[in-house]
Amino acid sequence: MALIVQKYGGTSVGNPDRIKNVARRVAKFREQGHQVVVVLSAMSGETNRLIALAKEMQAQPDPRELDVVISTGEQVTIGLLAMALKDIGVDAVSYTGPQVKILTDSAFTKARIVSIDEENIHSDLDNGKVVVVAGFQGMDEDGNITTLGRGGSDTTGVAIAAALRADECQIYTDVDGVYTTDPRVVPEARRLKSITFEEMLEMASLGSKVLQIRSVEFAGKYKVKLRVLSSFMDEPGEGTLITFEDDDKMEQAVISGIAFNRDEAKITLLGVPDKPGIAYQILGPVADANIDVDMIIQNVGEVGTTDFSFTVHRNEFARTMDILKNQIVPHIGAREVVGDNKAAKVSVVGVGMRSHVGIASKMFRTLAEEGINIQMISTSEIKISVVIDEKYLELAVRVLHKVFDLDQENA
Amino acid sequence: MALIVQKYGGTSVGNPDRIKNVARRVAKFREQGHQVVVVLSAMSGETNRLIALAKEMQAQPDPRELDVVISTGEQVTIGLLAMALKDIGVDAVSYTGPQVKILTDSAFTKARIVSIDEENIHSDLDNGKVVVVAGFQGMDEDGNITTLGRGGSDTTGVAIAAALRADECQIYTDVDGVYTTDPRVVPEARRLKSITFEEMLEMASLGSKVLQIRSVEFAGKYKVKLRVLSSFMDEPGEGTLITFEDDDKMEQAVISGIAFNRDEAKITLLGVPDKPGIAYQILGPVADANIDVDMIIQNVGEVGTTDFSFTVHRNEFARTMDILKNQIVPHIGAREVVGDNKAAKVSVVGVGMRSHVGIASKMFRTLAEEGINIQMISTSEIKISVVIDEKYLELAVRVLHKVFDLDQENA
Repeated sequence: MALIVQKYGGTSVGNPDRIKNVARRVAKFREQGHQVVVVLSAMSGETNRLIALAKEMQAQPDPRELDVVISTGEQVTIGLLAMALKDIGVDAVSYTGPQVKILTDSAFTKARIVSIDEENIHSDLDNGKVVVVAGFQGMDEDGNITTLGRGGSDTTGVAIAAALRADECQIYTDVDGVYTTDPRVVPEARRLKSITFEEMLEMASLGSKVLQIRSVEFAGKYKVKLRVLSSFMDEPGEGTLITFEDDDKMEQAVISGIAFNRDEAKITLLGVPDKPGIAYQILGPVADANIDVDMIIQNVGEVGTTDFSFTVHRNEFARTMDILKNQIVPHIGAREVVGDNKAAKVSVVGVGMRSHVGIASKMFRTLAEEGINIQMISTSEIKISVVIDEKYLELAVRVLHKVFDLDQENA
Repeated sequence: MALIVQKYGGTSVGNPDRIKNVARRVAKFREQGHQVVVVLSAMSGETNRLIALAKEMQAQPDPRELDVVISTGEQVTIGLLAMALKDIGVDAVSYTGPQVKILTDSAFTKARIVSIDEENIHSDLDNGKVVVVAGFQGMDEDGNITTLGRGGSDTTGVAIAAALRADECQIYTDVDGVYTTDPRVVPEARRLKSITFEEMLEMASLGSKVLQIRSVEFAGKYKVKLRVLSSFMDEPGEGTLITFEDDDKMEQAVISGIAFNRDEAKITLLGVPDKPGIAYQILGPVADANIDVDMIIQNVGEVGTTDFSFTVHRNEFARTMDILKNQIVPHIGAREVVGDNKAAKVSVVGVGMRSHVGIASKMFRTLAEEGINIQMISTSEIKISVVIDEKYLELAVRVLHKVFDLDQENA
């Protein structure tokens, strides 16, 4: 008998039939003798509907009141699932975040969990009940309702698993695990049986958005065994286990996966005076305009100057170029600004590359052999990213997937 | 400066524009220097939508979980109104029933309020805030979410007014007060400036469903000054004040209004053996089938027998007749069961009739002069009801409205 926390996302509870499917899955685990805590998101689309209502009231909705409104989405699904469970003979009880005393700070719409009072949950579990908890929400010390921000339900699941010292936290989603790359691009892509937390962080931020990053950090911090599974398969299988790097492992895979981002736009300022504060002068106005910047690269240019590049989402390309041309270039005295909105980013990710030399050169050689020009390079401890012309994206992902043997079971 | 509790129903907050209208109305009261607590229902239709979802999960939804789900409707509107108020510069804060500590018993879906912790409300009001409270909901001693049943938001409004010792509880609805009768039937119908609690109870239960009966009882018990107003008029006027009978009043109106119910069906059992327990034997199976019975009349019949009549809603007529013919008549040995599903009920209501003889005879004579046959009569302290053929309903209401001078301002 194990204690399992299962988290189901918005599409998994997107309509009454799907909620009933979740109930049947939970019932199976109960029949096997496990104790189960279920954490739910709102029905898909519901949070957006509520935010739209709020914006009709106030262009910038008051954060405290926004949390009062949007936290109702999860409250509906927990009640419905508890009913569906009872309807098939499984005793269950639902709790909102405030009811189960998920205490957070008071940063409305992006609160962080401080503590969870797990006493009631334990007592209900001991009485044979399935406990259904609303994800995404909590309350602060003064009893105000708070929410954890987008994807916060994953974090709730992990935090409850940590508080209960659960044997496993299962994240059910619309994919059946983490893949070596996107199977739509590379049919040979394999589901990984396991992936380290650090790799998962790099994969998630690079586009394989299976898990909320914060929940992965949280799981790492509290050593919660985290597993990604599909909620749409009758037999979800083993999914992908997120492991700690210090887990015993005879041989560490060198590369775990190939992540990629389409729809990037690349902007370069040439001949920027090389002096302190220049990066802030460039990116400050961009950030003020609420434009997210992805890669940032600065390299040496001609004497006394530097070349500064960064990428943004393609949709923000025109707006970013405007800001640069009108506000930044005249101000800092750069020679020229050039841009390209047909860029894509490809990354190889793997904790193994720390101890294996030659990954970068193998990656660059492989791309060169296919005639793919590398426009920008950026590296971290466990990842190498390149920006290339978008038209080569699929080709690059396929050849890298093959050259790093990711289609082999024991890669 | 007064402390006013305002309650707005589902149609008054039925869409974003209407919520903004409510905000503007509240702002006016603030500008006049009043402290305002607002109690809200869910957007019209929302509670029914949530109940329908629940019924897809469980034919008979678990009451505790149903309350978790349906209490979200009011939680949405309070957040939205608080935003709308802030958007026009009025400081506001919203509270759910559990947050403001509306403590109830544990009778899920029909809980009764035990106490309200008014401390936070007072402190927010003193800080110049409008306090927006979710109607219809509370929590029990164990922290479970409860709801008060249909129309419970009126009760929340009155209970908060009682707890705060508010100067007035204003119930905003889609009519601008309580009328002497339905203006659609009698164009001369007048809005009553005031009506006693007892008359209101009789009027409400007779079809002038302006206020939830329980809230009126509550207001009477705690001596809350209750006023019914329109939320759809720019200047809602004075509405109708619900008074205590012991209020000073130079002259009490004899009759306050004419109430009526269409769609009644009348059923009579003839030749019922006149012995103890017979009423229960007849009505028990009807109640077990969840059929609401309105009037009940028993009269002496032939020697040793009695005639027993009652009315039900027309929609229940066929089902009730079936139960009587198949389960009851053979069992108790009644001679015959007859029914008529084209009946209507007309009542004259007024606390003044206690001290004025002749009301009943005046009523009966007036109907006789119009050739309207009275089929059943039932009376209470402050009301006389008759059942007549439905085709005479409008005529009866009009002539009674006139004969009791209800179209005169100083009636």
